[in-house]
Amino acid sequence: MYSFGVDIGGMSIKIGLVDENGHILEKRVIKTDTDPDLAIENIAKQLNDILEVKNITINEINGIGLGCPGAVDGSSGIIDILPNLGWENVEIEKKLKKYFNTKITFSNDANVAVLAEVKYGCAKNYKNALMFTLGTGVGGGIIIDGKLYEGNKCKGAELGHITLVLDGLPCTCGRKGCVERYVSATALMEQTKLAMQENKNSLMWKQVNGNINNVDGKTAFECCKQGDESAKLVVNTYVKYLAESMMNLFNIFRPEIFILGGGISNQGQYLLDMVIEYCEKFNYGYLDTPKVKIAIATLGNDAGIIGASALV
Amino acid sequence: MYSFGVDIGGMSIKIGLVDENGHILEKRVIKTDTDPDLAIENIAKQLNDILEVKNITINEINGIGLGCPGAVDGSSGIIDILPNLGWENVEIEKKLKKYFNTKITFSNDANVAVLAEVKYGCAKNYKNALMFTLGTGVGGGIIIDGKLYEGNKCKGAELGHITLVLDGLPCTCGRKGCVERYVSATALMEQTKLAMQENKNSLMWKQVNGNINNVDGKTAFECCKQGDESAKLVVNTYVKYLAESMMNLFNIFRPEIFILGGGISNQGQYLLDMVIEYCEKFNYGYLDTPKVKIAIATLGNDAGIIGASALV
Repeated sequence: MYSFGVDIGGMSIKIGLVDENGHILEKRVIKTDTDPDLAIENIAKQLNDILEVKNITINEINGIGLGCPGAVDGSSGIIDILPNLGWENVEIEKKLKKYFNTKITFSNDANVAVLAEVKYGCAKNYKNALMFTLGTGVGGGIIIDGKLYEGNKCKGAELGHITLVLDGLPCTCGRKGCVERYVSATALMEQTKLAMQENKNSLMWKQVNGNINNVDGKTAFECCKQGDESAKLVVNTYVKYLAESMMNLFNIFRPEIFILGGGISNQGQYLLDMVIEYCEKFNYGYLDTPKVKIAIATLGNDAGIIGASALV
Repeated sequence: MYSFGVDIGGMSIKIGLVDENGHILEKRVIKTDTDPDLAIENIAKQLNDILEVKNITINEINGIGLGCPGAVDGSSGIIDILPNLGWENVEIEKKLKKYFNTKITFSNDANVAVLAEVKYGCAKNYKNALMFTLGTGVGGGIIIDGKLYEGNKCKGAELGHITLVLDGLPCTCGRKGCVERYVSATALMEQTKLAMQENKNSLMWKQVNGNINNVDGKTAFECCKQGDESAKLVVNTYVKYLAESMMNLFNIFRPEIFILGGGISNQGQYLLDMVIEYCEKFNYGYLDTPKVKIAIATLGNDAGIIGASALV
């Protein structure tokens, strides 16, 4: 049996036919439409095309899973809101059922990502896992006893919206000092720019060809590796924010594994070594407790499709 | 069938025979012995006495559950460490089995408290619950799908050891700014004393007969109710610390109910109203998410016995 995985993003929608081993057998990428009806029609077209190309009937499909960038309640059949797409109250289950008589299920993108990693990626064989997706924002995913934990009406696992700094930087959620404001790629870019403004001689200026608008999530890391003091300070502070946020979750869940995904996780072993060193120093959060394995997500861009298919 | 619940405390050990409805049928309180072997012998003596008095055989007992003030791993059969009692590496299961051929199970006292409230107290019929015990420290308990969540080797659910203030007050756990340093009764007393030292005219001085050593967890609350400005500031700040700590957990778990127990929870409805007002202001943590019911623990001092018996 196969499943379809649909990864809805702000710019593109990725669609894949996935087998029982998490392998993508056929893949399509289409532009995201701001009109959800048109988008769903396009998704359906692609799914039908894949069925045809692979010579598979809908009866051989377990169902269609969708990962969505926003607040969704999988149990309701309705996408509440995807802010970057302008989608609101989209009856996705009902609408897709018009095209396909199969199981339709969905969750938010961070939940889908952790599910993918636990089923087929870096956390395979782990039953209790947490994940940060370090991108524009900070997404969170929780796996308990091998199952996705979403909380009441799927409104839990907002691991980016835990206060790291009481009365800290204002967050889009309405509170202050959230993890997202310190450890997202956006936050790192802000921290990088501040450090550059404070030190006009920093190598970081050369890295961005003198134009601060060219700063991205890699700028500080690249210059830190080359020994630039300002960049080192940015990276060390960022690692502190990240590791402290993680240790809070260690103390709550004491999971077996903690996964780092999203753009910043492309720093790979370099980031991993620094985070582990920081956590070692503080006994992984609390006196002599079991260490938490820390790992970098391995499924990359395909995690969305694979994880969405695993929702089914 | 019945179960035994044993609530091990720093000063006393409470022992009870509990029926299937969470009612304590017979209760004993003994002094805590710093020698664990003597303590276990005494516990066994009391349990046998209860069996005799109630004319019950050990075969009618489901097992013995114990709540312990410290780090314990129920799956290991061994109490790691109870700092206030000086107990270390106590093979409690093996030792109690010498006296009784029945199931022996144990957990830490905050876990036991939340289990009691969910099974028989204020959170009856809720399947997803969190609890803070606001005492000398801050204990935490997590119920997911009706079951106690303890984390790897039972070293999770340390809800008092989440950073509330990055680089804040040093904590016994080795980190800084933990929830426990701001919302425990100990912390409230510190906050009260500081405010009194800053305002020699505060009503709080009268409340403690001019002796700052008489400050307890009620001092600020009592004077706040009487309109004292310094006390109001202490209480409002305390409520902010508490509600922010709770909202972090709302965003992680989006539980159905959050229970407040321990000494400070004796403030009851007065405390509840203030905490709810604060949470309302911030949408219970994150945009328009389902409200979390906030409740005061109802089982009081018996929660330890009842919850321990419910472990079985």
